[in-house]
Amino acid sequence: MHIYCLDLEGILLPEMWIEVAERFKLKSLRLTTRDIPDYDKLMRYRLGILRREKIKLVGIQGVIRRVKPLPGAAAFLKRLRIEGPAIILSDTFYEFAMPVMKQLDYPTLFCNSLKTDKAGFISGYTLRQKDGKRKAVKALQSIGFEVRAVGDSYNDLSMLKAADRGVLFNPPESILKTNRSLPVAYDYKKLMKLFLAD
Amino acid sequence: MHIYCLDLEGILLPEMWIEVAERFKLKSLRLTTRDIPDYDKLMRYRLGILRREKIKLVGIQGVIRRVKPLPGAAAFLKRLRIEGPAIILSDTFYEFAMPVMKQLDYPTLFCNSLKTDKAGFISGYTLRQKDGKRKAVKALQSIGFEVRAVGDSYNDLSMLKAADRGVLFNPPESILKTNRSLPVAYDYKKLMKLFLAD
Repeated sequence: MHIYCLDLEGILLPEMWIEVAERFKLKSLRLTTRDIPDYDKLMRYRLGILRREKIKLVGIQGVIRRVKPLPGAAAFLKRLRIEGPAIILSDTFYEFAMPVMKQLDYPTLFCNSLKTDKAGFISGYTLRQKDGKRKAVKALQSIGFEVRAVGDSYNDLSMLKAADRGVLFNPPESILKTNRSLPVAYDYKKLMKLFLAD
Repeated sequence: MHIYCLDLEGILLPEMWIEVAERFKLKSLRLTTRDIPDYDKLMRYRLGILRREKIKLVGIQGVIRRVKPLPGAAAFLKRLRIEGPAIILSDTFYEFAMPVMKQLDYPTLFCNSLKTDKAGFISGYTLRQKDGKRKAVKALQSIGFEVRAVGDSYNDLSMLKAADRGVLFNPPESILKTNRSLPVAYDYKKLMKLFLAD
């Protein structure tokens, strides 16, 4: 029995921090895990900028609510969910992602959560666990599933390598170069084919 | 972070084997895990009847395709999926359940699969694992989730007891009597309240 695990940003949605960066015209918020692989370092950096710029959680949610899934993403996920169980494994936060999940028919999402202070500023975050994507794959394998996973970024590599089949989707050149053993898809048709092949 | 685990039949759908029993007018197919707690024994009994009556998988799927979720179930699940990740943990089979999952917007379903022979008769089944509901709860806890689970039958008890919060939904008297420590809901409003309470 198969289960499909999907990274969220870059696979089904655009990078949400880039959307936020553009909306608030803050180039400094454009960095992602593609640029800074150390997620905690990246998050501290982002939260520092938000506080300095006086941007609250509600302001970010307002931007994210208007984010559209990548073209074809909703239809791809809809079809995949007929083929078998699918779970989104993401390093994002429920507080960010939920406003846009409606457009994907509320798939099952495993991610993290934010802390806010009384004034509504993001004061920190709670990781469900360290290396959560890989551990979710291992947990699903431990209950009898064969895991097929897709991701595009540094923070997906341990998940893709733990999966029974890991697929790169639109990866940057730097990741492609150092992970030649992983199959690559540049569109949903190819991704579906790689996911469903025996 | 919470995750919601739901039994399928009796919680969101009517008992599918009872629907099949009624459609084919076979009283002998009306038994469920409420009646025979040993699932393998129950399944061998059912598959024997199907073969004797010359009922193929496609015939059963035709019946199940017309099954309607319990009144209010689709709206309940839709709302719950906004609150957090929800996974259906069921002892049914993908081949049975998928034709009716559309009506529930394809929630994530962990269940089992059927084997068929060349003629299209169900020849056996593959359990993803033994005691799969409880093990799924433990696996989700192991990756940092607090699990809130609901079920109605014998085959749910180990899942409900493993969960951080286990709720009985419309249980038969026999289960109620011997499981006084579990909170009970008789409608979705109460179930939602029990699921979402701190």
